[in-house]
Amino acid sequence: MDGPRPRIGILTISDRASRGIYADESGPAIEGVLRSFIATDCEYERVVVQDEVPEIVAAIRAFAAKGSALICTTGGTGPSPRDVTPEAMALVCEKLLPGFGEEMRRAALAAGVPTAILSRQTAGIVGRSLVVNLPGKPASVKVCLDAVFPAIPYCIELAEGPRLEGNPAVVAVFRPKR
Amino acid sequence: MDGPRPRIGILTISDRASRGIYADESGPAIEGVLRSFIATDCEYERVVVQDEVPEIVAAIRAFAAKGSALICTTGGTGPSPRDVTPEAMALVCEKLLPGFGEEMRRAALAAGVPTAILSRQTAGIVGRSLVVNLPGKPASVKVCLDAVFPAIPYCIELAEGPRLEGNPAVVAVFRPKR
Amino acid sequence: MDGPRPRIGILTISDRASRGIYADESGPAIEGVLRSFIATDCEYERVVVQDEVPEIVAAIRAFAAKGSALICTTGGTGPSPRDVTPEAMALVCEKLLPGFGEEMRRAALAAGVPTAILSRQTAGIVGRSLVVNLPGKPASVKVCLDAVFPAIPYCIELAEGPRLEGNPAVVAVFRPKR
Repeated sequence: MDGPRPRIGILTISDRASRGIYADESGPAIEGVLRSFIATDCEYERVVVQDEVPEIVAAIRAFAAKGSALICTTGGTGPSPRDVTPEAMALVCEKLLPGFGEEMRRAALAAGVPTAILSRQTAGIVGRSLVVNLPGKPASVKVCLDAVFPAIPYCIELAEGPRLEGNPAVVAVFRPKR
Repeated sequence: MDGPRPRIGILTISDRASRGIYADESGPAIEGVLRSFIATDCEYERVVVQDEVPEIVAAIRAFAAKGSALICTTGGTGPSPRDVTPEAMALVCEKLLPGFGEEMRRAALAAGVPTAILSRQTAGIVGRSLVVNLPGKPASVKVCLDAVFPAIPYCIELAEGPRLEGNPAVVAVFRPKR
Repeated sequence: MDGPRPRIGILTISDRASRGIYADESGPAIEGVLRSFIATDCEYERVVVQDEVPEIVAAIRAFAAKGSALICTTGGTGPSPRDVTPEAMALVCEKLLPGFGEEMRRAALAAGVPTAILSRQTAGIVGRSLVVNLPGKPASVKVCLDAVFPAIPYCIELAEGPRLEGNPAVVAVFRPKR
């Protein structure tokens, strides 16, 4: 228990937030949800980049190189011309985990958002880091994390990252018996 | 409102229909459903090609080059040797939207068709056009359009295409508040 | 009815089972479920390989070259560094069928396993063979085969393989009316 604290990276992908046209709201929203879900004392770091594949790839690689257990992105997963987060994921991830996108879309559909099918969110592994794409809207972040967070700590362990404890009052983390 | 009418392309992909061995039934069925769903006055065009990747790619590119808002294909999405629509989609689309295929398979499963999992239907963006693969069977077309149409007009707007109004007596088009 | 019996290949992908560190339990479990589901007299063959892409690809190709109607794999579909079954599938399959993975993950989620989203299981076509990835845990094999088996005999026919009859006391095989 004397090792370094697990690191968690939060990457906001937004042309406008990166230029200060508006404040990044979804990055702090993600940090808030993760702090409530994770009982383990972690070090959180937030970065904002433009909707550009090289910037997104570089930011994810930088978080992974620091040994981040979990990297959550927000934004850039829709069908608009500037939405390129999935293209960056395809380049940077060693493995893609399609079940995350399926389940997040299903949860958002079940929450009454038919346009959830437009999201190209996915998740993947970079080194020992799990990267999960979250929506750009703060209100949708919680729906998605509620849906997939129970599987995240076990996924990080399978990827040889650190152990994260959930906060059982808020979320039920699941670890199958081997 | 004085600009050109939005264009909608319908592409039937079938060796037999293209050779006149049987009449194209699913193309007209799709046009019928879309005319009932879309209140905006649109220009519909139907084309029939063989199950060949270059022909499919060329037909989709031609519809996109004309500025079609929506391009619906029918046929060629199964596991048979001649089914190559998804291979053409992977080549021609700048972005793929996996949520469409997931939701259409889920709707067909829920309608009591266990073989819906064999469909490789997807959707994607070519230029400013949304391309959606529909099944080859006329009876299944409506199930799929019922499932995904509510998200289609907003998707076209995100892709910088024209605004399409739904017919509220028939379908509930959804546009999230930004 | 005097032709050769349909062949079914079962491929266990496991470093430890391939070295004899433990016995292969999921391969025999799959054979047991398939023998109960399939009424047609088939020839079953089981092979064990390491978690190495070239070995997995070679084993699937060898089963396909023998004309196997169905090839079921078990293991190697998670996010761990040694899990490479999906990478082998992407190389060896002429067509991937994402609906299988979606439905198997959904069935496992519905069975109360939130970590089902970590599975990268898929299915695909190699020649005239259908290849389906199943989980590494014997207990999960049945959940997945219950979910997708009804569509398997029709899929094999579309891929120009032999006709397999289901055992109606155990499973409801589905063939759509053409």
